Order: sequence, then C-alpha cells, then structure tokens
Amino acid sequence: MEYTKPLARLIEHFQKLPSIGPKTAMRLALYIVKMSQNEVENFSNALLEAKTKISYCSNCFNMSCSDPCEICSDQTRNKSIICVVGETKDLMAIEKTNEYHGLYHVLQGLISPLDGIGPDDIRVKELLFRVNQNNIKEVILALNPSVEGEATSLYLGKLLKPFNIKITRIAFGLPMGAELEYADEMTLARALEGRVEISLA
Amino acid sequence: MEYTKPLARLIEHFQKLPSIGPKTAMRLALYIVKMSQNEVENFSNALLEAKTKISYCSNCFNMSCSDPCEICSDQTRNKSIICVVGETKDLMAIEKTNEYHGLYHVLQGLISPLDGIGPDDIRVKELLFRVNQNNIKEVILALNPSVEGEATSLYLGKLLKPFNIKITRIAFGLPMGAELEYADEMTLARALEGRVEISLA
Repeated sequence: MEYTKPLARLIEHFQKLPSIGPKTAMRLALYIVKMSQNEVENFSNALLEAKTKISYCSNCFNMSCSDPCEICSDQTRNKSIICVVGETKDLMAIEKTNEYHGLYHVLQGLISPLDGIGPDDIRVKELLFRVNQNNIKEVILALNPSVEGEATSLYLGKLLKPFNIKITRIAFGLPMGAELEYADEMTLARALEGRVEISLA
Repeated sequence: MEYTKPLARLIEHFQKLPSIGPKTAMRLALYIVKMSQNEVENFSNALLEAKTKISYCSNCFNMSCSDPCEICSDQTRNKSIICVVGETKDLMAIEKTNEYHGLYHVLQGLISPLDGIGPDDIRVKELLFRVNQNNIKEVILALNPSVEGEATSLYLGKLLKPFNIKITRIAFGLPMGAELEYADEMTLARALEGRVEISLA
C-alpha cells in the first residue's frame, strides 16, 4: 500500500531526524494530521524561525540568536574560566546543573581520525586565540568519556600547557545512585584512578 | 539557563508529539538548526501540506487526500468484505502484509468507558449503515487484543449479528518467531483457546 503523498512526504522528513525510525515517523505524521490547523502552523513556523534566527556565537560557538551569545555577554559570569565542550547540547547539560558560572567554548565536534575529523575541523584554533588574548586562569575540559573525547582532551592539554594556566578535566567515576556491583570495569577503573582523599575534620 | 527563545519554542513543539521527551525534543531541535535552510523549509512545508490536504474518507474514515479514499475507489478490491480497525495506523499495518484486498472501516477509536469513550463517539453507526446498504458478505474485526479492543469487538459482534453475514476476528496467539517458554500466560491461553485442527492429507 502506498501512503497518500503528503503523508509519505511528512513521514520521510520525520525519518531524517536522529533516533526516529519508520514506525515512529509514521506515528508522528499521523499525530500531526490530527492536531489542530493552528498548532501545525505554529510548529511549522517554529521550525523556520529556529533555523533562520539561530546562529553561532563568534566567540564561543554556542548556538544563539545574538552575537556574542547570552552567556558571553552576561556581565555576571566569571570571564577567567572557560569550560570546553564538544557540542551545544553538552553546554546545555552543564548549564542545567546551575553549578558553573564561567564561560564556554563549544568545539563543534571531537577529534576522530576514523571519521576523518582532525584538529583543524573543530574550533581548536579559536580556543587558543581566546586563551592567548584574554586573561584566562583556568580551562576545564568537559568532553565525553569516549575514545574521541579522551583523544581531544589529551591534544588540547598539550596545546594549552605552554600558557601556564590551570587545566582541569571533569571527574569520571560512578554516577550518583549507581551500585558498585553493576558498574562496568572501565568506569570502576576510572573511579579508582580518580580517587580523592577524604578530609577528616 | 534559558534556551534562546526560538530554540525553546521549537523544543516545546517537538515535546508535544507522542513519545518525544524533553531530551529527545532538545536533540531534534538542535538537529534542525544544523540542517540546511532548504531542508528545514521543505520540512516546514510538509507539515502544513499534510495538515491541509489530508482529510478523512466519508465512507471508511481512512485518512486520505481524496474522498472516497484510494482504497474505497479502487475497482480491483473486493467490495463485499470490510475489515474493521481502530485507527488509520492499524489499516496501514494490515495493508503492508499485502494479504488483504477488501475494504476497511476505521472506527477512529475504541470503546473505553474509563476514558469516557462510548459507542457514539466512534464510527459505529457509519459501519452499520455500510453493512446495511451494501452487499457485504463478511466483516473482519481487527481490533487490538486489549480490554478496549475486546469490549468493542464484543459490542460490534452483537450489533452485526442480525445482518446474517459472516463475522470474524483476527487470530490471537503466539507471534511468529516467539518461544513458548517466554510467552506470557494471557497470550498462551488465547493461543490454546484458538487452536486449529491440523489437516493431515
């Protein structure tokens, strides 16, 4: 059976999105048809608006409607710390913790020789430029604990060393609420490696 | 942290869709920003087009751009059998098997007293009208094996009985490839109940 054309087209568009398979795409498309005309128009406009209005901050490469972005232009933030992340979504995850009040640098990717992504394909130059130009005291590397993340951290660590600033990376270990018994060996090994002395007052 | 406005709006729209949680909505929205302008425009148009062009067949209540729908107006289909389904997606699932060549009737819901959905809220009247007016020989009930599906099947069975036509329902039992050992009790009970005699030629 063939789907009626406009439905087939919509299903195809949904299927192009990440993590949406053919069954979900069909369910979403059918749901759209059942939504009110008004809601669909708003959704349709929101897509266009997000695409046309959002661009990248020329300083930290965060997605934003303004340049510099809201974070870079926020006067209350600590401008002497830069937290380096791989993608905008990582920045958002850190912002949600409400624990960090410095600046960011979005690399827009991680070094991955297998995928043909080298240091020149991500925003490394721009990071060095910022560290060089501004009075940066600390760079926090907050990259995924994956092969690519580790390789990128190592590479950035070496490049940043000559600046004589504090270079840190986020801690890897057991997630909160986890049970030791069920943790994988890699995580447990990193948790042991990264052990911290307890101060007994 | 607050998302930049157009992004927040798009995330909100994605989150309204079924099976899309806040994390997926964010991932999809970020993906949209990274897509090409052209692709986003096409997606945006596909949404509007699906909503404006697709309506329901006034005969079988299938979603379609034409009325009667492609299936109802297909002269090669057997017009003496009606397969009754709950939703358009069930019709699509059956069409994909390529095993059925009769007509359909989409109830647009199932009887569910707990949700306040009674027989008058779904397309029961219209089904009886079709069975009464046309020369229908068989009605196949293909409703979900759920409490609502069973209740609706039972109700329709009673209403259709006076027409003196063949009334059947699809078989419930073990899915292909399943293992008896792992089947739940309900399924196994229905499989036993619906056992079929083997013809030894």
